[in-house]
Amino acid sequence: MSSALLRHPRFVSLEGGEGAGKTTAINAIYAALRARGHEVVLTREPGGTPLAERIRAIVLKPDADIADEPLSAEAELLLVFAARAQHVRQIIQPALQRGAYVVTDRFTDSSYAYQGGGRGLEADWIADLERRVVGLLPGLTLLLDVDVDVGRARANSRDMWPDRIENEQDDFFQRVREVFRDRARHDAQRFALIDASQPQDRVAADVVARVEQWLQEQERA
Amino acid sequence: MSSALLRHPRFVSLEGGEGAGKTTAINAIYAALRARGHEVVLTREPGGTPLAERIRAIVLKPDADIADEPLSAEAELLLVFAARAQHVRQIIQPALQRGAYVVTDRFTDSSYAYQGGGRGLEADWIADLERRVVGLLPGLTLLLDVDVDVGRARANSRDMWPDRIENEQDDFFQRVREVFRDRARHDAQRFALIDASQPQDRVAADVVARVEQWLQEQERA
Repeated sequence: MSSALLRHPRFVSLEGGEGAGKTTAINAIYAALRARGHEVVLTREPGGTPLAERIRAIVLKPDADIADEPLSAEAELLLVFAARAQHVRQIIQPALQRGAYVVTDRFTDSSYAYQGGGRGLEADWIADLERRVVGLLPGLTLLLDVDVDVGRARANSRDMWPDRIENEQDDFFQRVREVFRDRARHDAQRFALIDASQPQDRVAADVVARVEQWLQEQERA
Repeated sequence: MSSALLRHPRFVSLEGGEGAGKTTAINAIYAALRARGHEVVLTREPGGTPLAERIRAIVLKPDADIADEPLSAEAELLLVFAARAQHVRQIIQPALQRGAYVVTDRFTDSSYAYQGGGRGLEADWIADLERRVVGLLPGLTLLLDVDVDVGRARANSRDMWPDRIENEQDDFFQRVREVFRDRARHDAQRFALIDASQPQDRVAADVVARVEQWLQEQERA
């Protein structure tokens, strides 16, 4: 499968469930890369371009006039990949080509976890879309792993409107977590598994340590 | 390919390029089916549900804040199929199940023509999405076929804002027309080819005659 996918050394993704501390960790990576003098583009999925953010709103925070229409799993997957197609072509590829680092809050692994594990769509289909639409793998993926209960308690304590996915039940998030962990086990070269049950500043410190170790490996290679 | 697709006897699609007279023809089909006492659902693609219409707007009539972002061919295809997934599940299948006729202005053939022929995406990919997301074929597809020049002159005379696709060049529409005609040639059982270079009332009359012939065949079967 990954033979058709290009793994890019300056492309970093953060993955994980709700309440894993991704935002704090991303800001810490940004500071660490900037301190080394690199241009850094921080971005997120679904979204990352104006058009892709419009798609994100349909998937996660639908306006009142479409909020009652059930979004089929198939449509959700296609919308997420449509947004990703824009994100890769408009933001990620141009940034990598000019020498910047790109750090994204979620990438294709999230589709395997949420639309595959969570919604039950076939992993083969997701892999086909990844090859046709994305063609790109992060050089390093940091998986912020935490018990579903702990993560959800943290996510709920943020005073935000729950989105379409946050409204799912615990077994959904259990399946999401299992897919993330499976993927990390099967691609240990790309993934770094981070214990996100720790306090957020410890999570961020572990993340930065892993990024710096990876940068040193790149420099030696 | 079509082995996995269910061809439904009460499902009618109209296809064709710009300025072929689809709207007049659809209204004539509606009147003919209603005169026989049938429930008829008129619908269109991309769109047909509130959420799918939101997707349509992104593809065809983007707001000013996203109008400058080039929409990749891949994202266009995925958006059109996401809208179609909603359309099939929310509108078409429920209507067919309760015994109504469904008449749609465009369906999957338009993806083969516009995103395949026009944009150059692989027909195999479109067929894969059709199997996974749609699973359904019209019982009758009326292809309103007209020279690209004639159709565009008619479309331009309607005082409307051109959309993203109407802004394409003639060779794009030539490829679209060729795919439509190829598909009609290769599936003559499902397609009726209508000469849409005629005045619109003649086109509508030919369309209604073909629909009535088809209804009679259904009754005899």
